[in-house]
Amino acid sequence: MEIKFKPIGIVHSPFKKTEDIELQRQARTRGFDDVAGELEIFDDYKEGLKDIEGFSHIILLFAFHQAKGFKLRTRPPFEKRLRGLFSTRSPHRPNPLGMTVVKLVQRKGNILKVRGVDMIEGTPILDIKPYTPRDRKSRIRVGWLEKSR
Amino acid sequence: MEIKFKPIGIVHSPFKKTEDIELQRQARTRGFDDVAGELEIFDDYKEGLKDIEGFSHIILLFAFHQAKGFKLRTRPPFEKRLRGLFSTRSPHRPNPLGMTVVKLVQRKGNILKVRGVDMIEGTPILDIKPYTPRDRKSRIRVGWLEKSR
Repeated sequence: MEIKFKPIGIVHSPFKKTEDIELQRQARTRGFDDVAGELEIFDDYKEGLKDIEGFSHIILLFAFHQAKGFKLRTRPPFEKRLRGLFSTRSPHRPNPLGMTVVKLVQRKGNILKVRGVDMIEGTPILDIKPYTPRDRKSRIRVGWLEKSR
Repeated sequence: MEIKFKPIGIVHSPFKKTEDIELQRQARTRGFDDVAGELEIFDDYKEGLKDIEGFSHIILLFAFHQAKGFKLRTRPPFEKRLRGLFSTRSPHRPNPLGMTVVKLVQRKGNILKVRGVDMIEGTPILDIKPYTPRDRKSRIRVGWLEKSR
């Protein structure tokens, strides 16, 4: 069984290649929260963006289009040990799907200006969803990440 | 350009068909937080589950495999007006991808016992990711949802 997806848009990012993101990760402990970018939604889907501007944050689902292959044990950034792939956010996954919650700054027609960009220029956008209170979990435990922070 | 995905597992849910979920939605204002289910990860990917039990919540990416077609304006449950599709969590999307954050209760080998299940029995799992502090946004605005709550 295979499921086929088609991009509905494209990410415009200050990061031109994967290595730029790795460098950024090392340079900043604050993460990617203030990294600005744009989501360009193709004209065919533009009408679906109505009402999105009421939301402060959106869930961006995208393809890690440059990732090739995967290993079920992987060593995350800043981490000494190999970890189970599904306990990491590595781009190298059986299905190279990415999920990032970005801040919606402004909408201009089919362009969404956002902050929190941690993907590269040209990343295919698969879906956009509103971020709602259900997505905001409290009292979370973060396993091996806890020690490595 | 098309991107192909293959399920890495399957959801076991108390909801056998889509209508069961709609009934549940109407019956409870508390949502789906306490709905128990299991994520069965196929043997090929089992090793990637290592370390996942350290996390209290996981991000489940899945296919709305019974959704057919989409409309760019749609009327969400309990809402009077048509809303832009991407400002809703409707299953009927250009790419029928679902995202739900579930609570991880226990792992038994390749089975993850979870709570917060809002998808039907047999739903194909595409990816599992750890829920981290980055996914937890504060001071959120939720547009039209605000009025309808």
